[in-house]
Amino acid sequence: MRSYEVKNRTFAEDIKALRLITAIKTPYLPDGRFDLEAYDALVNLQIENGTEGVIVGGTTGEGQLMSWDEHIMLIGHTVNCFGGSIKVIGNTGSNSTREAIHATEQGFAVGMHAALHINPYYGKTSIEGMISHFESVLPMGPTIIYNVPSRTGQDIPPHVIQTLAGSPNLAGVKECVGNDRVKQYTSNGLVVWSGNDDECHDSRWDHGAAGVISVTSNLVPGLMRELMFGGKNPALNSKVMPLVEWLFHEPNPIALNTALAQLGVVRPVFRLPYVPLTRAKREVFVKIVKEIGRENFIGERDVQVLDDDDFVLLGRY
Amino acid sequence: MRSYEVKNRTFAEDIKALRLITAIKTPYLPDGRFDLEAYDALVNLQIENGTEGVIVGGTTGEGQLMSWDEHIMLIGHTVNCFGGSIKVIGNTGSNSTREAIHATEQGFAVGMHAALHINPYYGKTSIEGMISHFESVLPMGPTIIYNVPSRTGQDIPPHVIQTLAGSPNLAGVKECVGNDRVKQYTSNGLVVWSGNDDECHDSRWDHGAAGVISVTSNLVPGLMRELMFGGKNPALNSKVMPLVEWLFHEPNPIALNTALAQLGVVRPVFRLPYVPLTRAKREVFVKIVKEIGRENFIGERDVQVLDDDDFVLLGRY
Amino acid sequence: MRSYEVKNRTFAEDIKALRLITAIKTPYLPDGRFDLEAYDALVNLQIENGTEGVIVGGTTGEGQLMSWDEHIMLIGHTVNCFGGSIKVIGNTGSNSTREAIHATEQGFAVGMHAALHINPYYGKTSIEGMISHFESVLPMGPTIIYNVPSRTGQDIPPHVIQTLAGSPNLAGVKECVGNDRVKQYTSNGLVVWSGNDDECHDSRWDHGAAGVISVTSNLVPGLMRELMFGGKNPALNSKVMPLVEWLFHEPNPIALNTALAQLGVVRPVFRLPYVPLTRAKREVFVKIVKEIGRENFIGERDVQVLDDDDFVLLGRY
Amino acid sequence: MRSYEVKNRTFAEDIKALRLITAIKTPYLPDGRFDLEAYDALVNLQIENGTEGVIVGGTTGEGQLMSWDEHIMLIGHTVNCFGGSIKVIGNTGSNSTREAIHATEQGFAVGMHAALHINPYYGKTSIEGMISHFESVLPMGPTIIYNVPSRTGQDIPPHVIQTLAGSPNLAGVKECVGNDRVKQYTSNGLVVWSGNDDECHDSRWDHGAAGVISVTSNLVPGLMRELMFGGKNPALNSKVMPLVEWLFHEPNPIALNTALAQLGVVRPVFRLPYVPLTRAKREVFVKIVKEIGRENFIGERDVQVLDDDDFVLLGRY
Repeated sequence: MRSYEVKNRTFAEDIKALRLITAIKTPYLPDGRFDLEAYDALVNLQIENGTEGVIVGGTTGEGQLMSWDEHIMLIGHTVNCFGGSIKVIGNTGSNSTREAIHATEQGFAVGMHAALHINPYYGKTSIEGMISHFESVLPMGPTIIYNVPSRTGQDIPPHVIQTLAGSPNLAGVKECVGNDRVKQYTSNGLVVWSGNDDECHDSRWDHGAAGVISVTSNLVPGLMRELMFGGKNPALNSKVMPLVEWLFHEPNPIALNTALAQLGVVRPVFRLPYVPLTRAKREVFVKIVKEIGRENFIGERDVQVLDDDDFVLLGRY
Repeated sequence: MRSYEVKNRTFAEDIKALRLITAIKTPYLPDGRFDLEAYDALVNLQIENGTEGVIVGGTTGEGQLMSWDEHIMLIGHTVNCFGGSIKVIGNTGSNSTREAIHATEQGFAVGMHAALHINPYYGKTSIEGMISHFESVLPMGPTIIYNVPSRTGQDIPPHVIQTLAGSPNLAGVKECVGNDRVKQYTSNGLVVWSGNDDECHDSRWDHGAAGVISVTSNLVPGLMRELMFGGKNPALNSKVMPLVEWLFHEPNPIALNTALAQLGVVRPVFRLPYVPLTRAKREVFVKIVKEIGRENFIGERDVQVLDDDDFVLLGRY
Repeated sequence: MRSYEVKNRTFAEDIKALRLITAIKTPYLPDGRFDLEAYDALVNLQIENGTEGVIVGGTTGEGQLMSWDEHIMLIGHTVNCFGGSIKVIGNTGSNSTREAIHATEQGFAVGMHAALHINPYYGKTSIEGMISHFESVLPMGPTIIYNVPSRTGQDIPPHVIQTLAGSPNLAGVKECVGNDRVKQYTSNGLVVWSGNDDECHDSRWDHGAAGVISVTSNLVPGLMRELMFGGKNPALNSKVMPLVEWLFHEPNPIALNTALAQLGVVRPVFRLPYVPLTRAKREVFVKIVKEIGRENFIGERDVQVLDDDDFVLLGRY
Repeated sequence: MRSYEVKNRTFAEDIKALRLITAIKTPYLPDGRFDLEAYDALVNLQIENGTEGVIVGGTTGEGQLMSWDEHIMLIGHTVNCFGGSIKVIGNTGSNSTREAIHATEQGFAVGMHAALHINPYYGKTSIEGMISHFESVLPMGPTIIYNVPSRTGQDIPPHVIQTLAGSPNLAGVKECVGNDRVKQYTSNGLVVWSGNDDECHDSRWDHGAAGVISVTSNLVPGLMRELMFGGKNPALNSKVMPLVEWLFHEPNPIALNTALAQLGVVRPVFRLPYVPLTRAKREVFVKIVKEIGRENFIGERDVQVLDDDDFVLLGRY
């Protein structure tokens, strides 16, 4: 079901060149549908601040809470509005090979530039099964493989990546296991993006990583741009670290969602099972913003501490 | 769930200006998935021959046989690859208001320029219900209302259209009831496209129609362009008429599907409940092509009579 | 995907023996989900009053407004709770052969006793296509074919039925064309149910029909039982006629939905594109109830005229 | 959307009384659809051998590879055919609260006796989010909570279970963390089923577990019945252990699927990402069967070593 139209031609090399990719937040309307106006504003702020790619519907963007038609729609929307300015990488992975095949085919059909693929989480499989899973989708277009054992319950071992590296579509790996693994790959010529914001500075400048697929860049894209492009900068890295630690003390994107609402750039609407951080933690965020400087964060409004009643939590959406 | 990005801004006026819109065929692979490569070729041929808009997933494009995710994907694909060259009008109508709302929202989100909306066929409803149905989707963007009582079992009476005409999003009506109805609308300043290829010449030149939403233009886009742009031309109209009659002697798109396969521009794959025309009818098509001139039809290959065994008929796809 | 468990064995002969089948109403909660408690009460009232079968998700039950998963769930629910007391006939027909195949397979898998199948409405097809469509689903289990050209835009001609009659699964035809057609079928040994409540008495007693698939029996199941079992009874037929006429002066199930809400047996919730009858028509219903006798209608509460504000109309559900 | 029909009334107490529950395998036809005939045979063998409940579409039954409509259909089918003989527990959990709510509502609507619920795997959430997730579904009916951190990446800590234990619908916990945790719960009066076949004998007889939710019982239901009902029996436990170890040396249900195919009770069809064990491992199974005794395994045919070519692996289904 491939299209060969010029508009659909992207090469793995185009993806390998990216340094800063944001796992973009998906904002919601009070009834749980996507708030496209807020989404467009978020993406525009990314572009203006030098982000080169977005992951649409990643775990940060809560792809796991989307229906597939919502998910593909959001990819198509992003390509149509912003595909000329930023690379659009659809998280069309799944623990079901059938779903991964279908979604990836559809994502490329609506013009995404690359796919992000996870190994089969929860259901898990054997190494042979893992390879078969990835080989089912790799021929469709440029692909980033995503390894995050703390979520999937199963590491993608290096020999699996080596096996897949024969495909010209393998752009690289989003790796969360740590910098030793990053080094192992980059030493062998593989492209790696750090999947851990707390390690990404070192991954980039000490371990050969191409860059980062970042959560933090949703909030401070300019600083993350500087971290990935401006050369070794431990001072800046230290400055950002309290924010990073705050962002990940509960499973992502709980803190990110809370932060963006308090910055006034998204409505305070949560799709369950995500709920906002406690008020105490929300107050800490305001302090962090002041320490790092409001001007480094996206949005124009004053940062505020939201009340519990300000939040809308939705089970049906 | 609206987006206000520049790429998503189309106005009803842009749609009103269109003269030749093709209800484009959806071609299939042997397993029933979309053949995007063939589809892209069909759309490119439309653009090259002067067609100004396409209806994606109309009854001709077999939207009624698509899952909604296929349908929205095809709209998004068409926008992404061809939206700069041709207006993309998604048939996001349904006899279920819920489905019409959801699909239309998604279609505009992936960038379609206008929606085509049918009244609730089969289930039918009262006049008040019909108006409520259309009013649920009109605010979303430029809209063409489609009236075809021979399919829906229920006419959209003029007073319904007059009620809806207050919306700035109503671009006009695709009308199949006949030229008296066309005249009635155009006399009142409404934009109308003929939905009947056999009447469209007269609709355009004698009854004030803006143009046609055509099936025949899938095959002979250049001739239909001439019919809609070149001034009154009864000779050309007569020349095309045997083709038009052949195309509609069985419910559309049966003959169109058969014809495109015999022209070698799509694979001879049918999704049930459509089946190819009989061999006798297929032979008549070859004669018609020769009479009108192969050069006026799309495609490069010789037209041929396909055998029964050449066709693939699919119930599961 | 067949199951041969005893619980899944029903024969066409079991279906042919039914005289009174109700196209059961689907009631809704205020957010548009099914009101199963009200539904269960409706089905129990049917059973108590002698109805022998229900059509689940017919046009009366607004199958056209259901997602397929809702539809199959309702069939499964009805089988599980009431399948020992009443025959459950799922309307698993569609104008898409793929959907008809999938839904019918699923309906039989959850235990429905028979399928109701419509010819491809709206999209329509050729006679050969119509036959292929029905032949795709007939092998799955007992089947009633439904002919209603005023909805589908296309008559199922008798020679199509004759072709299908070779299948042991063809239980019979729900016919809306009229008593001449009914007679034509019954003279040839085919089982027919009238699909027109205004004609069903004559169909049954003068033209050989097995019985009726009724809308009116939602309201007065006992009277319809008497009409179908008690022998020729023109007086009773005349008594019921004002109700029947009132029920069908707007497309069904608009009046039925309004009536059931006024009888207090369902909430006054409408899924669009259906909207309630006008207040004037609602007042007429109360008069009809009094003339026929409240005790002949289902429910215990006084019939009342609802205000416009009492109704909930839903576009998203 | 609740139903109060007698057929839909099950109480948590009915579930708490179960000792042997099988996480039943879902067998496939060569095109990937469910093989209901084989499934029915598997369930009948469970009933004949004394199993008291089945988990439908668990991780063993590959619920993660089902579309929701397949999943609910299979629950409804199982209830309809076998619900009088065995408790039907639907795995209607999800990492998306929306999906869990919808599926659980539908599962109870088609008559399932209890729901199995997992914490949000992969996406994960905070403790507060986890509790909100479970509280969204607990009111719907009897519920078993499933804790398997090796799959979900996140433990359900005991204080979460204690919080939920206030609901009369909480039947108990399927616990995979180990016997210390089991003991902790049973000491506090909570019902626990072991989720680890290798520990279940000790869980039952030394740590107060009610029983087991077993994978191994798919193969040797009679032996597992004896283990759970026959009193402490370390000899039998030791006899079964080589089979258990073989079953879990690769992520379940890879070995189970391979075993059932070699016993001739299901077709050798795999939905990716699962692939069969290597030939060497398949040969080991035959030896294990001979050691434990063919008569203790389900099925009538000789156990055989299948060739690689015997297996069908499906990415699209």
